[in-house]
Amino acid sequence: MAAVALVQGASRGLGLEFCKHILSYKAPAAVVATCRNPEGAMDLAALAAQHPGRVTVLKVDVTREDDIKGAAEVVKKSFGKVDLMINSSAMLHPTGKGETSLRDISAEGIISTLITNTVGPLVMAKYFTPLLQRGNGLFGHQSPEKAKQHSGIIVNITARVGSIGDNALGGWYSYRMSKAALNMATRNLSIELGRSRPKVLCVSMHPGTINTDLSRPYHKSVPKDKLFTTQHSVEHLMAVIESLNIEKSGKAYAWDGSELPW
Amino acid sequence: MAAVALVQGASRGLGLEFCKHILSYKAPAAVVATCRNPEGAMDLAALAAQHPGRVTVLKVDVTREDDIKGAAEVVKKSFGKVDLMINSSAMLHPTGKGETSLRDISAEGIISTLITNTVGPLVMAKYFTPLLQRGNGLFGHQSPEKAKQHSGIIVNITARVGSIGDNALGGWYSYRMSKAALNMATRNLSIELGRSRPKVLCVSMHPGTINTDLSRPYHKSVPKDKLFTTQHSVEHLMAVIESLNIEKSGKAYAWDGSELPW
Ligand SMILES: NC(=O)c1ccc[n+]([C@@H]2O[C@H](COP(=O)([O-])OP(=O)(O)OC[C@H]3O[C@@H](n4cnc5c(N)ncnc54)[C@H](OP(=O)(O)O)[C@@H]3O)[C@@H](O)[C@H]2O)c1
Ligand SMILES: NC(=O)c1ccc[n+]([C@@H]2O[C@H](COP(=O)([O-])OP(=O)(O)OC[C@H]3O[C@@H](n4cnc5c(N)ncnc54)[C@H](OP(=O)(O)O)[C@@H]3O)[C@@H](O)[C@H]2O)c1
Repeated sequence: MAAVALVQGASRGLGLEFCKHILSYKAPAAVVATCRNPEGAMDLAALAAQHPGRVTVLKVDVTREDDIKGAAEVVKKSFGKVDLMINSSAMLHPTGKGETSLRDISAEGIISTLITNTVGPLVMAKYFTPLLQRGNGLFGHQSPEKAKQHSGIIVNITARVGSIGDNALGGWYSYRMSKAALNMATRNLSIELGRSRPKVLCVSMHPGTINTDLSRPYHKSVPKDKLFTTQHSVEHLMAVIESLNIEKSGKAYAWDGSELPW
Repeated sequence: MAAVALVQGASRGLGLEFCKHILSYKAPAAVVATCRNPEGAMDLAALAAQHPGRVTVLKVDVTREDDIKGAAEVVKKSFGKVDLMINSSAMLHPTGKGETSLRDISAEGIISTLITNTVGPLVMAKYFTPLLQRGNGLFGHQSPEKAKQHSGIIVNITARVGSIGDNALGGWYSYRMSKAALNMATRNLSIELGRSRPKVLCVSMHPGTINTDLSRPYHKSVPKDKLFTTQHSVEHLMAVIESLNIEKSGKAYAWDGSELPW
């Protein structure tokens, strides 16, 4: 019985790297890779071609509840379960740049950031929870005690700037607010799904500052050794994921395993 | 030079009580009371009639950026400043009941809760900040040191259930997420407006569980001595507001002055 990992937002950046990494280190795990435009996701298509029979690409625009529902039905028929779901997709702001001050705020900008970064991952959790509850717990550190075992794990990719307590600089209103609200969703999910049997774990994770399109406008101001490759980030994140158990659910972790304040 | 307080969401509940209280304890302060349907706000109209010349009622549906912009223009012409702005309006969920589990989640439900509870108060801050920066600091505890003085105060009414760290029960996804994101907005505002000269303070405040329409579906399960009158809550909140200074900005406080975790 092979592990099934679902990566939401797999066309590029961190999500694509998660797919690559899981395929290589966790054979024969199957990867369900969702993205909003499969035809345009050439790197993902190339990856799927390199691993015949192991990658299922599904169209999910995370702002469309019907896409999410449809994908869950396909995964149910094909696999009947999910062991790990990673919500990776997000935007900084529709303009590509975070607000530097109140003047840059617009209702539409905040709303569309919240819809993609916050509402999307929670609606994913709604439709995929039944499948995660049928998982075999093939990711994470399984407890020997039956009552503490988990069937599945949900990872919501957050950001350190989504920590309210850690916020000393301000700015980036929409993005920060979307990640703070996502962290609340993580916490709520961990409580609800930690009560059920079988248990599903849920954590938020910060990948570090990584060299992707999302952070591109700011690369110049990041010291070179602080700008991670997606490979570096995913290797570390995956090690943390494989160490998760029920005691670690409902928290936010950085790439190095350290806990983030809310 | 009289104080000007703006209460957003003043038709009923906590917002209406803030208007009453400020009119009575802080004469000759002027109150700008905004609500989305002034014609239907009979209690507010009665209050205005009791205090001739001191209450200005303006139509603001907090989900409409144009309403907010228009109100700011009127206040600018009439008063040229605001000393205190309280964002009180919110909903638990469009259905009137918080989600008890993931099954109750819908994208539309979360989105409209976020738009009213989170985006609204931030867009208010955007348009009223220039007026708060022209305030005379007539609320709060003014520092003798010039560099620490404030011209205005923004109070975002949050809820204890919006604390991620305090969340032990789960449920109420939309409402909790909306208040966590609002707390991030508060934090960001406190940083940005604490840097400027003159300074504007910004805090989140939890009123306790109060006897209003919002909490009505849950009154049966609240012990009697824990269900506050709006009067009790506002008296306490106002005492905390009058004690605020720059060191206390950027935090979340309960009605009794205790700090809430993020
Ligand atoms: N980069 C950093 O430094 C950094 C730091 C902290 C946290 N993070 C977090 O890491 C995660 C991954 O970001 P990244 O750096 O890999 O960003 P990225 O390279 O810009 O990729 C963003 C991904 O999100 C997808 N996406 C956007 N809107 C979507 C929608 N409505 N439906 C489905 N997919 C959508 C994009 O798909 P398309 O290809 O279709 O546009 C793309 O796959 C995000 O949650 C981000 O907040 C990144
Ligand atoms: N009640 C509690 O136990 C409790 C506990 C913790 C925190 N709080 C917080 O306390 C604050 C006040 O709540 P409350 O108990 O006074 O609630 P309430 O009695 O239900 O009043 C809600 C207010 O929000 C207004 N409102 C809703 N949507 C609006 C919109 N789009 N634009 C403008 N105004 C809008 C309502 O106006 P209409 O009259 O036009 O509908 C009404 O004035 C809220 O922030 C709430 O989250 C309450």
